Amino acid sequence: MVKKAVTPGPRDERGVLAERILGAAREAFANTGFAGTTIRAVARSAGVDPALVYHYFDSKEGLLDAATNPPARWLENVARTWTAPVSDLGEALLRMMLGAWADDEIGPVLRSVLQTAAHEQNTREKLRRVVEAQLMGVSQLGADDRDRKVRSGLVSSQIMGLAMMRYIWQIEPLASMGEDELIDAIAPNLQRYIDGDIR
Amino acid sequence: MVKKAVTPGPRDERGVLAERILGAAREAFANTGFAGTTIRAVARSAGVDPALVYHYFDSKEGLLDAATNPPARWLENVARTWTAPVSDLGEALLRMMLGAWADDEIGPVLRSVLQTAAHEQNTREKLRRVVEAQLMGVSQLGADDRDRKVRSGLVSSQIMGLAMMRYIWQIEPLASMGEDELIDAIAPNLQRYIDGDIR
Repeated sequence: MVKKAVTPGPRDERGVLAERILGAAREAFANTGFAGTTIRAVARSAGVDPALVYHYFDSKEGLLDAATNPPARWLENVARTWTAPVSDLGEALLRMMLGAWADDEIGPVLRSVLQTAAHEQNTREKLRRVVEAQLMGVSQLGADDRDRKVRSGLVSSQIMGLAMMRYIWQIEPLASMGEDELIDAIAPNLQRYIDGDIR
Repeated sequence: MVKKAVTPGPRDERGVLAERILGAAREAFANTGFAGTTIRAVARSAGVDPALVYHYFDSKEGLLDAATNPPARWLENVARTWTAPVSDLGEALLRMMLGAWADDEIGPVLRSVLQTAAHEQNTREKLRRVVEAQLMGVSQLGADDRDRKVRSGLVSSQIMGLAMMRYIWQIEPLASMGEDELIDAIAPNLQRYIDGDIR
């Protein structure tokens, strides 16, 4: 598809253009990392003038920040997941995360976070907040604050490891296993971290 | 692929220079990713002429390849780990990986692999081989080839997730938990992947 350059339009177009720029930015960050990405290349790929990218996002740092912001809809999904009974939380969390990665809006954001967090301090801070948000319901669990944080971290280590293997590195057979097979295999391990004996 | 790569003894002057260049390269790849790293910057950081880097490693691709090659000593550690009784393998694997990350020679290589695999196809292939090498002993496990590969992948997902959380993203409390506490928490989950009911 040939994209032609566009200039800033009326207010209702702003959202559309911004989303197009963010989509191009996520792809660029994913392919070449933060340091290897230029505003010029993102603008070209989005079919807009570089000045518009600066106008909307101020800087490459601002662009990365916007590209890696978790959608509100995802945060709502996370909150809803925590209404599951504690004894079902391992499976519920895993289903929620698998659904998020398969989602056209949420998946690319999660991908851009995991693909830039290794090199960018700001994204790492955001990942930390995402991990905490994803697991905020664990506050209802654990013997004390320390126990709660350890359990949260363990759940994250398994969910993030699956995400890296399946979506970022795409290593088989995890990359193409069915969701139900993954849930049968992994949910009991998550459940042990949530309410099992980990000492 | 890297025709001019040097493999002399550690006291050889070329070996010392090559190691200094590789150390600088690992740090540069870790900080700015592959696309954001230049031969010039690596040479400056290693205190050598850029021409020497090209002479030893041919190209930036050759440099990345050499920087991410797993040390033979680590591969031997992996092979030795698999001599543990099957019922102890979860703990043995985890201890081996924690030891590898703490090792002055092996840790930086593992780090450089995990920090560049998201963006570099070649490193992702290497990661796949590392994962397979790490788990080659699983060939003695599983009901069939497919079951063996699934169990290998699940073990990797937990070990790699721990590595990302603890060493790459450095998210607490996993980043600073003691090894024994980690082993008590995680080894039983690995063991379930190795010989437990995962269906």
